[in-house]
Amino acid sequence: MKTLKERKLLIVGLGLLGGSYARALTAKGFAVRCIEINPASLDYALREGIVESGTTEADPALIGESDLVIFALYPHVFKEWIGEYGRYLAPGTVITDVTGVKGAVVYDIQAMLPEGVEFIAAHPMAGREVYGVENSTAELFRGANYIVIPTEKNTPEAIALCRELGEVLGFARISELDPEKHDDMIAFLSQLTHCIAVALMTSNTEPHLVDYTGDSFRDLTRIARINEDMWSELFLLNKKKLVAQIDAFTGELHRMRTYLADENVDKMKEMMRISTARRALFDKPKPKES
Amino acid sequence: MKTLKERKLLIVGLGLLGGSYARALTAKGFAVRCIEINPASLDYALREGIVESGTTEADPALIGESDLVIFALYPHVFKEWIGEYGRYLAPGTVITDVTGVKGAVVYDIQAMLPEGVEFIAAHPMAGREVYGVENSTAELFRGANYIVIPTEKNTPEAIALCRELGEVLGFARISELDPEKHDDMIAFLSQLTHCIAVALMTSNTEPHLVDYTGDSFRDLTRIARINEDMWSELFLLNKKKLVAQIDAFTGELHRMRTYLADENVDKMKEMMRISTARRALFDKPKPKES
Repeated sequence: MKTLKERKLLIVGLGLLGGSYARALTAKGFAVRCIEINPASLDYALREGIVESGTTEADPALIGESDLVIFALYPHVFKEWIGEYGRYLAPGTVITDVTGVKGAVVYDIQAMLPEGVEFIAAHPMAGREVYGVENSTAELFRGANYIVIPTEKNTPEAIALCRELGEVLGFARISELDPEKHDDMIAFLSQLTHCIAVALMTSNTEPHLVDYTGDSFRDLTRIARINEDMWSELFLLNKKKLVAQIDAFTGELHRMRTYLADENVDKMKEMMRISTARRALFDKPKPKES
Repeated sequence: MKTLKERKLLIVGLGLLGGSYARALTAKGFAVRCIEINPASLDYALREGIVESGTTEADPALIGESDLVIFALYPHVFKEWIGEYGRYLAPGTVITDVTGVKGAVVYDIQAMLPEGVEFIAAHPMAGREVYGVENSTAELFRGANYIVIPTEKNTPEAIALCRELGEVLGFARISELDPEKHDDMIAFLSQLTHCIAVALMTSNTEPHLVDYTGDSFRDLTRIARINEDMWSELFLLNKKKLVAQIDAFTGELHRMRTYLADENVDKMKEMMRISTARRALFDKPKPKES
């Protein structure tokens, strides 16, 4: 199997993530081509030197001569794209993605691909509360986690290639999870936290919050500026797991409420001590970045 | 009434907040004295030049000659202190505090003070997930909010003095709230957010969360490293309001859960749009700092 350096790269979709991939790969000396339907985004990327070349249409020749294709699209757009243009992917090509849910995406895509084309799913755990290629930055991945999500259809070579891509992009930690476990994790770590941030903002109508707030509320609601199209799609594609996480969290919050209402200080403190101990694991020194 | 510059300052309690007050005031040229019962903390503060002088005991002479006294103690310790040593405060003295709840503190303290001593309550909306004078920093207040909480017993002069103190400390915004409104705000902005962070950490036992997490979960749980003695005390002193805020928030989170379970995308997006619009108010340019 060809190495990363030997492959011709194509990024499909130059939003915040696609743009940040492009910047990081270009900075590392890769020749990055792209397909981006929005002419303004493509112009910006070309002008800024984020990509070497690109087109607004899914050009069969460009697709056919690329042998590492990175998809940075909404899940339903990703599926539609593969349905329409997947047949132009040449045997030996590896494709990967940045999609925030996997169970509802990865098996379908793998089933749609031509013989000899392999999809190895990945999830860069990095984002910002702003969108678009104009806000992209290669720094997005510094210190961040990268999850590779293989299925039984994947080869060790494609998994290794995808991990190498994560290293080149500058991620601090690279892990592997199966799609089921990934979607459990993401329901908790990412989707539940966005639900919480939104519910915090909608549960109080005081217009002067900003004058009274401390950093804790600021931190908990940074992600309350939310792209409603993307997140509602991601929530629905992981509905069962997200509902389960909301229920588990609500149960714990209700436990704290009960201890408080009962003035059960010992139990309140016990929850706080468990919380403190678990959170402390996050503050261990990070592994050295490459 | 004496101006801030004319007053002899005394800080009682050199923890994270008392220490940060001391640093900021010393840096502005004030002679800061202190009472701190922990000899190690006092030694540290003297060695670092954070305070000019200090004692581990509540020295009546020191108390009597100070005419602006800042209390940075746990609420129950503050009350006990005033009960025991408040009689040494001289007429004309103004005292203030940093206590995180007000209704359960301010009226009691005001009732306990000798004739001619005025308590004007304040709440610096700044903190860190670490504690102690060793972690104190004058930078803590940069860009932060400072709330003055007058009652009908307070004079305009003491309110003005307290606001001036907030300015000297370097706060970006200074507001006034009555104790009732303050405690409502704090139940929502500060106490509920700590409950949420704790409940997030206790609702998942996965030991490798740190390998998969993105910034959103990191941000939402920064405050999950929590001082259980302080926060359980603050929660109990504001029990009714905090329970009400937990219930209001849980109701909103449940609303999102219902829309999700029903696949009511329009309503999900509507909540997200309201959230985005309200959160955007937080990102307006800050007023110029003094």
